[in-house]
Amino acid sequence: MSLSIKNPIAEVGRLDPPTRLLCGPGPGNAHPRVHAAMSIPQIGHMDPAFLDIVEDLKKLLRYAWQTENVFTIPVSGTGSAAWEAAVANVTSPGDIHLTCVSGYFGERHCDMASRYGADVRRIEKPWGEVFTLDEIKKAVAEHKPQVLWICYAETSTGARQPLDGIADVCHANNCLFMLDTVTAIGGVPLFLDKSGVDICYAGTQKCLSCPPGVAPLTIGPRALKKMEDRAAKGEKVANWYLDMTMIQKYIVAPEGAPRVYHHTAPISMVYAMREALTLIAEEGLENCWKRHQETAEYFWGLIEAAGMEMLIPNKEHRLPSLHTVKVPQGIDAGKVVKHMREKFQIEIGGGLGAQLSGKVWRIGLMGYNSRKEVALTIVAALKDALVAQGWKPKA
Amino acid sequence: MSLSIKNPIAEVGRLDPPTRLLCGPGPGNAHPRVHAAMSIPQIGHMDPAFLDIVEDLKKLLRYAWQTENVFTIPVSGTGSAAWEAAVANVTSPGDIHLTCVSGYFGERHCDMASRYGADVRRIEKPWGEVFTLDEIKKAVAEHKPQVLWICYAETSTGARQPLDGIADVCHANNCLFMLDTVTAIGGVPLFLDKSGVDICYAGTQKCLSCPPGVAPLTIGPRALKKMEDRAAKGEKVANWYLDMTMIQKYIVAPEGAPRVYHHTAPISMVYAMREALTLIAEEGLENCWKRHQETAEYFWGLIEAAGMEMLIPNKEHRLPSLHTVKVPQGIDAGKVVKHMREKFQIEIGGGLGAQLSGKVWRIGLMGYNSRKEVALTIVAALKDALVAQGWKPKA
Repeated sequence: MSLSIKNPIAEVGRLDPPTRLLCGPGPGNAHPRVHAAMSIPQIGHMDPAFLDIVEDLKKLLRYAWQTENVFTIPVSGTGSAAWEAAVANVTSPGDIHLTCVSGYFGERHCDMASRYGADVRRIEKPWGEVFTLDEIKKAVAEHKPQVLWICYAETSTGARQPLDGIADVCHANNCLFMLDTVTAIGGVPLFLDKSGVDICYAGTQKCLSCPPGVAPLTIGPRALKKMEDRAAKGEKVANWYLDMTMIQKYIVAPEGAPRVYHHTAPISMVYAMREALTLIAEEGLENCWKRHQETAEYFWGLIEAAGMEMLIPNKEHRLPSLHTVKVPQGIDAGKVVKHMREKFQIEIGGGLGAQLSGKVWRIGLMGYNSRKEVALTIVAALKDALVAQGWKPKA
Repeated sequence: MSLSIKNPIAEVGRLDPPTRLLCGPGPGNAHPRVHAAMSIPQIGHMDPAFLDIVEDLKKLLRYAWQTENVFTIPVSGTGSAAWEAAVANVTSPGDIHLTCVSGYFGERHCDMASRYGADVRRIEKPWGEVFTLDEIKKAVAEHKPQVLWICYAETSTGARQPLDGIADVCHANNCLFMLDTVTAIGGVPLFLDKSGVDICYAGTQKCLSCPPGVAPLTIGPRALKKMEDRAAKGEKVANWYLDMTMIQKYIVAPEGAPRVYHHTAPISMVYAMREALTLIAEEGLENCWKRHQETAEYFWGLIEAAGMEMLIPNKEHRLPSLHTVKVPQGIDAGKVVKHMREKFQIEIGGGLGAQLSGKVWRIGLMGYNSRKEVALTIVAALKDALVAQGWKPKA
């Protein structure tokens, strides 16, 4: 046989992406040392030396999340894959998922959980607000869920959900506490064990300064018990790639036990995540959090000094990683995004979803990009884009 | 709150993987230019420049697979994720999956399809053999499947399945032809459209010289029709992360249509795959295939000259990418693998599954590693390991 599809090389040329400062909702720019780690020639996924690297990664990840969970691993996909792994492994058909929706990602959880036969119940707040413990208590009493899902750091709104007391409510009602920490891990104070979280996932491309392509997942004792109970009943996980009962034999086997192949791990991304977590440990977790908070406060100050306003009035409910800035009246939000990208090679994000589209920008100062000089640059470029639309900055 | 999980940095030290020659069943060593592509700072997954890069990748991938399918994309996971995407999107509960099992990966398909409610029917051959068209015809007539799954390149056995006539049998019986090309794409002659394949996936870490972490998927018109019919009936894909009806709006939108965010793509891995496919287009697809065949024949010659034997007697049924060498009598296969790794930093694979474990080695000469000097090195090291167990090479 001969080729019928012609060689496109003359048409496509070589890979030549532009250089951007990434201050949208993520990915942020990865740390140069993380890119360097990806350029190290890989080894095999069953190589004892690779399994040692994964063991080191697991220790570093437990530190970043402040958890003792043995089952704390890199999942072979982006953050949403780790999320779906959490859902698929602890959801039996008919399980009630109480979903706290105050942004785009709450909507996603409803959709995702429904794919696994969950009976999804939702409580809602306007996007950008957080839930009170009383609201959560009432909803748990009413719905008697098997799983409560809430987002610690809503990437669509910039809101930071207080976690105090949620675990007690869940555990008094035999309910698993599932937490989304995608835009928090490494940048926002987070104590998984002290907060009583049962199952949790995150992304690498936000405060971890690592490209997307591998994602953190941790499963605590209560959630593991649920997985074991399901397995004992002969209930298979309705997802092969993310079946943690199989992956456990590969990556969480007890010391000395044989490692059983499941799927090929994304080796270079594991190197990247290992290096990203090393950077956090070198800086010290509390110093990382402090840096994010200081950069955030500096940024908020610049925004307000310029005469703009943050979406979330209460600073305690604002994330220090992802910032929602209100679009001033009369300004075309999309044009500003385009201006910043085309004139300055800067990426910021627009609003996501019906409630916030066109009404806010989402500006990430996360991980490697959580630096005062980045905040300064972003605000200067934002002002330039606004002035181009006739807006007058206060300062 | 204060930290309860101590900083493990002193314990884990820095990332320092060994340097290995990877000639197992995969991953093989990635091409240095592919690693270089991963070190390019990333841009955002919604950036128009990124979407352009994906368009170029799609063209290159269509060339490598010899298909005109519009829906030809990188999936955000390793090869098994692309596989599960194929299964999840075209399988309605109760659909009959006729699965041709002659190796480990046939077993995997049975397991995976069953997670989506498929009625799995299997035909079997001893591992290492291939199916005849007559056997396939009879089975299709008997089982009347909605999907026929077969593996073109069985990574567990090194067998190359002839494809002639399979599509005609499938299409005459209103059955989709699903093909596994994980260890074939880029290294083994493959004409998806001419072979009438309806849905197909692959891996990057074999003949594409790219690390795992992103994987090729293509969906032809018949399979797309099935997806549309399912959607029209209100049947949701039972997997959110791999829901191609949603991903279509992000990555296969018609020109000029808005791109809808689904999940964050693994940017650096997409760069890697783009560069890997560029290398194939630069070399020319037929030259790639020829190089693999020539390296394979050189390797087989060396093996036989040394007095060893290949598992598959008929050269036409041997893959030119992944080679199964019989373990000589009295030799401990695992010790040889260890000897090669520890003395020479070379990875080869052992046999996988009950039928072949301990009986063969799996040696990959794929992509960047499909070179005569690599074949020579492997055979020399293998002989050294055998001699250490008292074996006498013929030459």
